[in-house]
Amino acid sequence: MIAEKVFFLVLDGISDRPHEALNGLTPLAAAWTPVLDRIAAEGVCGIMDTIAPGIRPGSDTSHLALLGYPPHDYYTGRGPLEAEGTGIHMVAGMIGFRCNFATVDEDGLVTDRRAGRISGTEPLSDAIREGVDLSALGVNFRFESGAGHRAALALIGEGLGDGVSSNDPKGEGARPLAVQACTEDPADRKTALACNEFISQSAEILAGHPLNARRMGEGLAPANLLLIRGAGKMGVFPAFQERYGLSGSVISAATLISGIGKAVGLEHIPVPGTTGSVDSDLAAKVNAAFGELERKDFVLMNIKGADEAGHDGKAIEKRDFIEVIDAALEPLLTLTDTLLVICADHSTPCSIRDHSADPVPVVIRGPGVRVDRTVRFDEISCAEGGLNRIRGSDLMPIVLDLINKSHKYGA
Amino acid sequence: MIAEKVFFLVLDGISDRPHEALNGLTPLAAAWTPVLDRIAAEGVCGIMDTIAPGIRPGSDTSHLALLGYPPHDYYTGRGPLEAEGTGIHMVAGMIGFRCNFATVDEDGLVTDRRAGRISGTEPLSDAIREGVDLSALGVNFRFESGAGHRAALALIGEGLGDGVSSNDPKGEGARPLAVQACTEDPADRKTALACNEFISQSAEILAGHPLNARRMGEGLAPANLLLIRGAGKMGVFPAFQERYGLSGSVISAATLISGIGKAVGLEHIPVPGTTGSVDSDLAAKVNAAFGELERKDFVLMNIKGADEAGHDGKAIEKRDFIEVIDAALEPLLTLTDTLLVICADHSTPCSIRDHSADPVPVVIRGPGVRVDRTVRFDEISCAEGGLNRIRGSDLMPIVLDLINKSHKYGA
Repeated sequence: MIAEKVFFLVLDGISDRPHEALNGLTPLAAAWTPVLDRIAAEGVCGIMDTIAPGIRPGSDTSHLALLGYPPHDYYTGRGPLEAEGTGIHMVAGMIGFRCNFATVDEDGLVTDRRAGRISGTEPLSDAIREGVDLSALGVNFRFESGAGHRAALALIGEGLGDGVSSNDPKGEGARPLAVQACTEDPADRKTALACNEFISQSAEILAGHPLNARRMGEGLAPANLLLIRGAGKMGVFPAFQERYGLSGSVISAATLISGIGKAVGLEHIPVPGTTGSVDSDLAAKVNAAFGELERKDFVLMNIKGADEAGHDGKAIEKRDFIEVIDAALEPLLTLTDTLLVICADHSTPCSIRDHSADPVPVVIRGPGVRVDRTVRFDEISCAEGGLNRIRGSDLMPIVLDLINKSHKYGA
Repeated sequence: MIAEKVFFLVLDGISDRPHEALNGLTPLAAAWTPVLDRIAAEGVCGIMDTIAPGIRPGSDTSHLALLGYPPHDYYTGRGPLEAEGTGIHMVAGMIGFRCNFATVDEDGLVTDRRAGRISGTEPLSDAIREGVDLSALGVNFRFESGAGHRAALALIGEGLGDGVSSNDPKGEGARPLAVQACTEDPADRKTALACNEFISQSAEILAGHPLNARRMGEGLAPANLLLIRGAGKMGVFPAFQERYGLSGSVISAATLISGIGKAVGLEHIPVPGTTGSVDSDLAAKVNAAFGELERKDFVLMNIKGADEAGHDGKAIEKRDFIEVIDAALEPLLTLTDTLLVICADHSTPCSIRDHSADPVPVVIRGPGVRVDRTVRFDEISCAEGGLNRIRGSDLMPIVLDLINKSHKYGA
C-alpha cells in the first residue's frame, strides 16, 4: 500500500537540551508521551538539521526549508510572511512589516511596547486605513490587526526597497527611533520616508481615537504609537500544488506560520479557540486537521506552546505542556493510509531561552516506511533511528518518494 | 595492512520496502543470507542515498554517482551509455539511441514491440549496416545488435542535436510515430530527419531480409521495424584510471552498466552464461571477477536479477533470488587483502514496481575498516551501522582513502 495523503505536524520548538530541573533529561525525554512514543515505534525516526548543522533557525526559515523552499532562495525577512498571515494578500514586490501597538507618554517615551497587551484593535486599524494617506509619496498601503497587540503593514508602490531599520527602541522608557534607510539606495530611502510618514500620521489618528480615550479613562495604556519592524520584500513562491501535485491546508495559530503556508498556496484553516500558546484548544486543532485530510492531500499543522515555554526558560512547564500535546495527538494513532510526519522546526532550549541549532527529532510513520527499532520520540532516541541525520530540505523529497510522487532521475 | 584492490559489487535494485507477503520484512531482510551477513559483521555498514535523499535514481545516474561521476555533470541520457554497452565505441558528440527490433503488420500497426522476443539479430544488423545510407544528410551511423530484441544506434556528423522524440508508440496496435525535434534548434531537426530516414531505410531492408521470411514461414513475428528511443549526446568522461590511478574492469550482463563502465574507461569483461536476469550464471561471474582482480586494481560487478523481480512486484521471487545471489557470493569471504564494497544502486520496492529513493544498504569490508556492530546486511540493520547515512558521491572518496589513494587537502 502507498499513502496518498500527508499529515505534517510541526511541534514548534519542542526540541531542547538536557536540563538540570529534569535530572539531565530534555523536556521531551522527561515527558510521559505514550502517543508520540507509539508513533516512533511504528515509524522510522531520525534527527534533522532543519537548515544545516550548527545553523540556528528561525521559525520562518525552518518552515520554508521543511516545505522545500530553501530559505537562501526564498527568505526575504519575516515582515512579508507575518503580513500574509495577518490577512494582507502579499504580492511580489510589496514591502511587509510586523507591527506592535505601543504606548508613548506625554514626553514621547515608549512606556509599554505592547500597549498593555491590548486586544480588539480592529477599530484602530479601520481608522488608520481610512485616515492615513501616503499618496503624496506615490505609496499605497495595507494595514491589518493581528492577535493581541500585533498588526501588520504592507507598502505598495514603484521603487520601494526593504533595507530599512525599525522605529522600535526595544527597551521601554526610550524614545522611538526614526526609521532609516540602511543603504544609499533611493528605494530604501523612499521606504524609510513612507514608514516615518505612516508612523506619524497613524500616531495622530491613534491619539484622537475614542477607543484610546476610553482606555485611558479605565486606567489602561493607550495604543497611541505603532512600532514597525522586520521589513522584507515579498518574493515569488512557486505554488505548492504545482510543485508537488498536492493540494494542501495549513492549521496554525501563529500568524508567521499561517503566512508561510499561505505564501506557498496552502489554504489557511482558522480554528476557534487556538491561541498559539499553552492554553490552545489542541483537540479542536487535531479535529480540524482530520477534516482537512478528508478534502486535501497535505495538511501542515503547527503547535506552538512548547516553543513559548522554551523562550520563557520554563523546563517543567515545557515538559507538562508536551504531555498535554501528546494526549491531544491520540487520534493520530488511527491514521492508517496517511503518511504522518512529526518533527520540530528548531530546538528552543529552556537553558538558553532562544532557538538553538541542535538537531530536532523527526518521525515518519505510514505505509512503506522502514520501521526501525526506536521506540521513544525524543532527541536522543531518535538519533539512533533509521533515518539517521537528515536536513530539513531532504524532508519533502523523502515524503514525496514515500507517496510515490517523486520523479525518476535517469532511467 | 592496506588493501590495494577494490571489488565493488552492485546488487542492482536489491533494496526494498517492508512487504506484506514477507510479514512486513523487506525481501533482503527476509532472505537467508549468511554470506552477506558475515560480510556485514566483518565490515562497516551504512545506508546511502545514491544521488541525494528523496531523489529517485535511475540505474544510469546512480552508477555514475557511485563511480564518482556526478550525474548532474555527466549524465546526458540513457541512449549513448546503452550504445556504448552494446559495442559501439561512442565518441563525444555522437548521438546514441536504444533500439528494439519490433513487428508491424500490413496496416503499419505495431503488433509486437519486441518482435516475438527475437534473438540472434546479427544478420539483420549486418544488412542494415550495409544497406542504410544517410550520407545525403551528411550523417554517418553505427548500429549494433544487443541481447535479444535489443540494439543500439549512433549518429555521427556535424551539427546533430539530441533533443528528439521516439518513434515508439509504447502500446501495441498503434502506429509508429514520426521522430520529432523537441526544439526549434536546427541540430535537433537534423537528428530527427536522420532518425526518420534511418527508420524508413532500415524497415525496407528488414522487410526483404531472408531471416524474416524464414521467421514468418515458421509462424514467428518478423523483425521488420526498429523502434528507437533514449536519445542523448555522448559526453566527455575523464578516464577512471587517470582520475583515480586505478586500472579497472566491469562485469555486467546489463548493457547500460557495461556501457557506463566502458564510458569511463573500465574494460568490459563478457561472461558467457550471464543474462542480467534471475537465471544468470552467477558463479561464472564471480569467477570472472576473481580473475580480473588478479590483473586489475578495481572491479565493478553488477548483478541485476533482484531489480527485475522488484519491477515485476514479486517479493517472494526477489527474496529467493537474493538467497541465490548470497550463495554465489561465498567465494568473496576468502578475500583478505581486497577492499570489498557491496551496495545497491537504488531501491526497487516490489510494492511500487519501480525504483524509489529509499536509501540503500552499503557495506565496506577489508583492511583498515572500522568494523561496527551491524551483523545483518539489510536496509534496517545497515541504518544502524558505522557509516551512518552517506551519499553515492561519497563512496569513491571513502574507498580511495581506505586504499590510501586519496590526496591530503591542506598540510
